[in-house]
Amino acid sequence: MSKEITSREKDYSQWYNDLVIKAGLADYSAVRGCMIIKPYGFALWENMRDQLDKRFKETGHQNAYFPLFIPKSFLSKEAAHVEGFAKECAVVTHYRLKNDENGNGIVVDPEAKLEEELIIRPTSETIIWNTYKSWIQSYRDLPLLINQWANVVRWEMRTRLFLRTTEFLWQEGHTAHATSQEAIDETVQMLNVYAEFAEEYMALPVVKGVKSINERFAGAVDTYCIEALMQDGKALQAGTSHFLGQNFAKAFDVKFSDKENKLEYVWATSWGVSTRLIGALIMAHSDDDGLVLPPKLAPIQVVIIPVFKGADQKALVDEKVNVIVNDFKALGISVKYDDDDSRRPGWKFAEYEMKGVPVRIAIGMRDIENNIAEVARRDDKTKQSVSLDGIANTVKVLLEEIQINIYSKAKKFRNEHITQAETWDEFVSLLDGKGGFISAHWDGTSETEEKIKELTKATIRCIPLDNNKEDGKCILTGKPSRERVLFARAY
Amino acid sequence: MSKEITSREKDYSQWYNDLVIKAGLADYSAVRGCMIIKPYGFALWENMRDQLDKRFKETGHQNAYFPLFIPKSFLSKEAAHVEGFAKECAVVTHYRLKNDENGNGIVVDPEAKLEEELIIRPTSETIIWNTYKSWIQSYRDLPLLINQWANVVRWEMRTRLFLRTTEFLWQEGHTAHATSQEAIDETVQMLNVYAEFAEEYMALPVVKGVKSINERFAGAVDTYCIEALMQDGKALQAGTSHFLGQNFAKAFDVKFSDKENKLEYVWATSWGVSTRLIGALIMAHSDDDGLVLPPKLAPIQVVIIPVFKGADQKALVDEKVNVIVNDFKALGISVKYDDDDSRRPGWKFAEYEMKGVPVRIAIGMRDIENNIAEVARRDDKTKQSVSLDGIANTVKVLLEEIQINIYSKAKKFRNEHITQAETWDEFVSLLDGKGGFISAHWDGTSETEEKIKELTKATIRCIPLDNNKEDGKCILTGKPSRERVLFARAY
Repeated sequence: MSKEITSREKDYSQWYNDLVIKAGLADYSAVRGCMIIKPYGFALWENMRDQLDKRFKETGHQNAYFPLFIPKSFLSKEAAHVEGFAKECAVVTHYRLKNDENGNGIVVDPEAKLEEELIIRPTSETIIWNTYKSWIQSYRDLPLLINQWANVVRWEMRTRLFLRTTEFLWQEGHTAHATSQEAIDETVQMLNVYAEFAEEYMALPVVKGVKSINERFAGAVDTYCIEALMQDGKALQAGTSHFLGQNFAKAFDVKFSDKENKLEYVWATSWGVSTRLIGALIMAHSDDDGLVLPPKLAPIQVVIIPVFKGADQKALVDEKVNVIVNDFKALGISVKYDDDDSRRPGWKFAEYEMKGVPVRIAIGMRDIENNIAEVARRDDKTKQSVSLDGIANTVKVLLEEIQINIYSKAKKFRNEHITQAETWDEFVSLLDGKGGFISAHWDGTSETEEKIKELTKATIRCIPLDNNKEDGKCILTGKPSRERVLFARAY
Repeated sequence: MSKEITSREKDYSQWYNDLVIKAGLADYSAVRGCMIIKPYGFALWENMRDQLDKRFKETGHQNAYFPLFIPKSFLSKEAAHVEGFAKECAVVTHYRLKNDENGNGIVVDPEAKLEEELIIRPTSETIIWNTYKSWIQSYRDLPLLINQWANVVRWEMRTRLFLRTTEFLWQEGHTAHATSQEAIDETVQMLNVYAEFAEEYMALPVVKGVKSINERFAGAVDTYCIEALMQDGKALQAGTSHFLGQNFAKAFDVKFSDKENKLEYVWATSWGVSTRLIGALIMAHSDDDGLVLPPKLAPIQVVIIPVFKGADQKALVDEKVNVIVNDFKALGISVKYDDDDSRRPGWKFAEYEMKGVPVRIAIGMRDIENNIAEVARRDDKTKQSVSLDGIANTVKVLLEEIQINIYSKAKKFRNEHITQAETWDEFVSLLDGKGGFISAHWDGTSETEEKIKELTKATIRCIPLDNNKEDGKCILTGKPSRERVLFARAY
């Protein structure tokens, strides 16, 4: 049944790649570091996107679209921002190709050199804030609540399908506010939108927190994040929401006149999640037989596989299944009847297991005689006989159970993998052994954080928002600390 | 009421730009030739996209995503294709910026030069067919029916908001088939999908036809198109569907083994529509007071404007309107209640007229006493008193009427502007006077077509699919012709 998937135990990283490729989620492309999102993977992304988009709109945001290109000079206007992104920028320098005069085929036309180079957006704060300058004059223009679904490019040296690719798809919210408090509230609101989406739809428990200075977004005053735990004990940053203060307003001179007609710089936020979420989804729930997808996001929620011999039997099964399929559709359940007779049922069982379809229904002649079908859950591999009467309703309840079960399992694992460390030795042996989040004291300095990273490859994932204040001593330096932070090795 | 929109009569081109900017559809950006699609324009695009996407999926297509970048060598593999696109390619040559050692700020790092330049996709045939090579082995893998929603870049010298921009949003379908006939059928099927969408949703009558060789897509065997007519008598190509033959399969060596195990090259199609459709929508229906949007695509279908004095009156109106708003929502009608009390009703009337909202409802104290409201149509500017009882249902019917009326008006105009020309003088004077499509004989040669373009700026928009065969003489050369074609000046 394993269809040549490397087991997690043998090689977790290879297991992940095998799943992505063999379940048909994505493929490598001919362009270094860029991936192809295949139809099954893209359907998953569409489901995630639609849910997120709905929540963005419910919280008053509107979609818009800004240029792919950012003039080089814009990127330089916010000092920390350019410092953070300069090393990974794809740069457009020319706008024409031509036939080489010496017969070397198609070459870049040296005469078509741009006066100013254009950067492919790695994120859009600069082009957007340059625009907001002309959109915002008065407090009446605020808040400005805009989101963009787009592709971005960051020239990464080491790439992984979904987790870290040169080009990726994401959404980036960019909002403008009259007060600092309103911007902070927006930042936290969007963090909560992400957290609720992750937990309710992706069945992915997350820790909400704030980043340390070292891990902060380039140009932010504060970066909030949701952090998830993968089955190999490594953490994954699943979404970030930034309070940008007045940094970009100052860099692009965006002021508004308040009710007293006084000019003030505008307050900003930005927030984003990307196709990286698909990587998180895979690594949090799947097993050695393939994907395990939460029903609320699965492109196919139920697959029905007929078991028959010959055309007469098939006609009888078809007739019965067509009724059931309509019942499923009426309940808004995404169902696929796979009656391709060039594949055997066993092959299909393995295929849909691989693809993580939450519920599989097998139905044969004897089942029809007995008015039942075999219903198999992908998450715990259990099977049961279910009456054909009202089977769609039965399965609807089952899908809800599966959603909860996947979440509970992931949450149990995550909770079991938040461990307190009191000494450096304990800290190191936890990292090398059990893994997961390590809750430990830290003296609050960037130097210590860097030193810990250097020594162990662990970073501070976040300072949890619901942290208890607790006096203690830094795990590395022994200096005083007033609260624990979460360390982990991370994707 | 005209809010400083230039009239069509005075300057059609300026009228168009005024509408786009003042109705809040789009804005110019700091990047040459690139536009910003503002929330109202993007909401319109989302409505168009969702309808098209639904039709693509209903006809068996799946969405996927391919890289933004195309290696330069890929573009060169299909001779006609590179010939067509080389002159408008944005080229990425470097992947890093750095601080200049001489203190000139941020510069492109010369050491981060790509071995092979990357082109920003102007269209994705090459990167996709390079991928299909590994996805297609046998007839079992066919047909492959894939669509992509993406941004593309063509370095245009003269740009116009929506109509011709350096970067634009579009969808591109790329399908692979076992037989030539199946591919041709697909090409025509998608042309019909476009035509039905244009007519039913955009209220835009279109002529379906085939392009002459000169106007064919670079790399296609045949280009099918839908052509629409704008109010200034110029034509606009609203969508194209290409039968690519085996050109790309040969360029990228994509073969499949058929049922007899014989290796054959795969047959291809591609088809696309873009944000240009928004330009067509604006120019086909709008008037000197602003946009006229067909109800089926309007982001706001109904706006309700309260007329009141003081808080007490407002509370009474609010109460009544809230019930009505819920009735509209229950019918799936997109309604906005604009109770912003910092703007006067007259200002709002002009604003929503400008934005092309199909139905405006004004409701004041006396209306409530009489259990009526004033309902104004955007398309023909008529007003009527409508009973508040069942007003949502009344307006629902009205929206359907408006949709039909906008279409009928555009169709009447279009039909009145297809004129037969029998002589060259007639041809020229029609072009310079009445405009529109000119149905005339042509000797079938590229030379004649080019000469006509040179002399008149008119091009062959298409050879209509439903053309009658009719012997005649070429309008320019007098050489024999067997059917008329449609000429026009075009966007």
